[in-house]
Amino acid sequence: MKFGGTSVATVERIRNVARHVKRELAAGNEVAVVVSAMAGKTNELVAWCKETSPLYDQREYDAVVASGEQVTAGLLAIALQEMGAPARSWLGWQAPIHTNDTHGSARIESIEGAGIIEGFKRGEVAVVAGFQGLHKESGRITTLGRGGSDTSAVALAAAIKADRCDIYTDVDGVYSTDPRVVPKARRMERIAFEEMLEMASLGAKVLQVRSVEVAMVHKVPTFVRSSFDDPANPGAGTLICNEEDIVEAQVVTGIAFSRDEAQITLRRVADKPGVAAAVFMPLAEAGINVDMIVQVVSEDGNTDMTFTVGSADYERAFAILEKIKDDIGFSSMAGAKDVAKVSAIGIGMRSHAGVAARAFRALSEKGVNIRAITTSEIKFSVLIDEAYTELAVRTLHTLYGLDAA
Amino acid sequence: MKFGGTSVATVERIRNVARHVKRELAAGNEVAVVVSAMAGKTNELVAWCKETSPLYDQREYDAVVASGEQVTAGLLAIALQEMGAPARSWLGWQAPIHTNDTHGSARIESIEGAGIIEGFKRGEVAVVAGFQGLHKESGRITTLGRGGSDTSAVALAAAIKADRCDIYTDVDGVYSTDPRVVPKARRMERIAFEEMLEMASLGAKVLQVRSVEVAMVHKVPTFVRSSFDDPANPGAGTLICNEEDIVEAQVVTGIAFSRDEAQITLRRVADKPGVAAAVFMPLAEAGINVDMIVQVVSEDGNTDMTFTVGSADYERAFAILEKIKDDIGFSSMAGAKDVAKVSAIGIGMRSHAGVAARAFRALSEKGVNIRAITTSEIKFSVLIDEAYTELAVRTLHTLYGLDAA
Repeated sequence: MKFGGTSVATVERIRNVARHVKRELAAGNEVAVVVSAMAGKTNELVAWCKETSPLYDQREYDAVVASGEQVTAGLLAIALQEMGAPARSWLGWQAPIHTNDTHGSARIESIEGAGIIEGFKRGEVAVVAGFQGLHKESGRITTLGRGGSDTSAVALAAAIKADRCDIYTDVDGVYSTDPRVVPKARRMERIAFEEMLEMASLGAKVLQVRSVEVAMVHKVPTFVRSSFDDPANPGAGTLICNEEDIVEAQVVTGIAFSRDEAQITLRRVADKPGVAAAVFMPLAEAGINVDMIVQVVSEDGNTDMTFTVGSADYERAFAILEKIKDDIGFSSMAGAKDVAKVSAIGIGMRSHAGVAARAFRALSEKGVNIRAITTSEIKFSVLIDEAYTELAVRTLHTLYGLDAA
Repeated sequence: MKFGGTSVATVERIRNVARHVKRELAAGNEVAVVVSAMAGKTNELVAWCKETSPLYDQREYDAVVASGEQVTAGLLAIALQEMGAPARSWLGWQAPIHTNDTHGSARIESIEGAGIIEGFKRGEVAVVAGFQGLHKESGRITTLGRGGSDTSAVALAAAIKADRCDIYTDVDGVYSTDPRVVPKARRMERIAFEEMLEMASLGAKVLQVRSVEVAMVHKVPTFVRSSFDDPANPGAGTLICNEEDIVEAQVVTGIAFSRDEAQITLRRVADKPGVAAAVFMPLAEAGINVDMIVQVVSEDGNTDMTFTVGSADYERAFAILEKIKDDIGFSSMAGAKDVAKVSAIGIGMRSHAGVAARAFRALSEKGVNIRAITTSEIKFSVLIDEAYTELAVRTLHTLYGLDAA
């Protein structure tokens, strides 16, 4: 069971979490609970680090920020004990949850679950501080990056061979798209790991991408559900599971979108070998992720190259390219931050042709101009003007029969 | 160097601490810094534990509360780096600072300073989280109890064979008595370990008693000074040192007092063997410390027994004694909470007779009634009505020539 920051924001809410845990114990389950820091706490700690030095040491940042989960883990253990359930807290270095040394966004390498399983034998709930780990060689605390508690939970579930990983959040499951944009969005009963991975990667915020990867690799059935349900009588949620376990697969299961995109176009790039590397290597070295890439070769042998970066990286990317303009050889550069990426995801695309083509037509009929397209086996994305985001999402949601009755 | 909660209450104050550290580095010293949690933080964390369960698990309490020092240790390391001084934080479990398993008020058993000393060789300041340790066998975090960071600092200084332990606090040293009561109180240049131990035990709040014990046992010269001094031009303080290092010893060096006392008198206690044990064992088993004990044997073979307990324990002690009244055999019980203990301390008492007698006369001349007296080699204490506390302190302060010119 994993509970996020809003679910543990106060002592009263921590008690409510304990009630959810008690229900699972009463059902005969052995339970490990992963908790985030109280809502707002991590932001406060991060702000102190930044105030102390804008160029803070990531290792010290990790020591400071990991304290948030330490507090909630201890408090939840106390709350469980108060309700008669034996419990103990496990910090990242105690479990231990081994990670690499990429402080601030470390990757879990292994989890030694033996102590936790010993605790189960004594009837003890394991309350595990999420988001944090230990770099074994240096003995320093690491953190997994924002949303990392989801990954802690799924990785722990894999390590202790849990039957299920329940992610309690502030929504009651995964929706076909954001219900704030499409009121007719439907909660899915089930979604395949691959689909969820694309949904999360393409803008759905319900789960951290890395946590879905871990769930997929280790085949951990992961259940997304609401922490605001009545603990005694919880509602439904969405099960993320193997493709084979989904009875009625649809062609498209969800529409994701992200406004956090910026477009850069290089005009008349010399079409010579190595030019793509010349453009993208300097960006990669600066830690800038490049996403959609489209090249159009004109008749005179020159190329227009369009790609997207995160909007936070836009100015930096622009400056880097400006500096190496002559080395690469392009005539001019243009860009836009008011763009959005809308994506349709579904494992059914593998076996159905023309799924994307229908979307292009439907969008064009609504007057939505498509700036770029990328496709993969189970999804396609279009880059459009940001102002048309909601229209495009609603159009595709209806087109693929996702609207709730 | 040790800095308390008010000295690290904000990022700006943490920067000021870093400036003090930089000055010591510039003077060619290797520095380990012990920090407390930001002022108010520990209280907040304790309140959350109590809100979660009044009968909280001390082990979980320790995990929760130790997070406060973790934050300030990381932030100070960042602040030092920002000023160009290499630094790293060490949490209790990282140093490691080994303690016993008395969670909530653990005792330091040993400190492995090797990693910290390795850091010195690399020119690195060690920023050590105070107040916390590790119980090796269980792998759990322990805390040392309120004011424990003083003890962390002195014990660390002993472990790494420091030349000096500087305790930065919100006053500029140890005074002959509380300057709020006696404006003519003098800051001492030096005070012997034994004297400081008595001062702290008898009510002076400048240092935790346990920290003075450790300093005395390991002969760590400990310097009490103000963190509000200009880091570039710090003022004086008080050095706690060996008796031999004090050139001009006075007979009495300080007057301590405590209003946190309560008196209990048992009348006509049967004067039979084992009666003292019958009275004091049940109190000890309930964790109640008994301090001053006075017996007066009357002609008919009965005894009046007077002793003091902490005022917080008064009602509990009274109730326990009421219950075992018949077993012990006494005629009646009386008590008072409005009493105070005033003590005079000085290693010179060892070689000077009649020091206490002068006090009794001076107090009697001022009309201060003495309820009980205890003496030891280097101090004596009188129990008086609380209303006379200031008068008694001022009288003794003047009597022993402690008033500043």
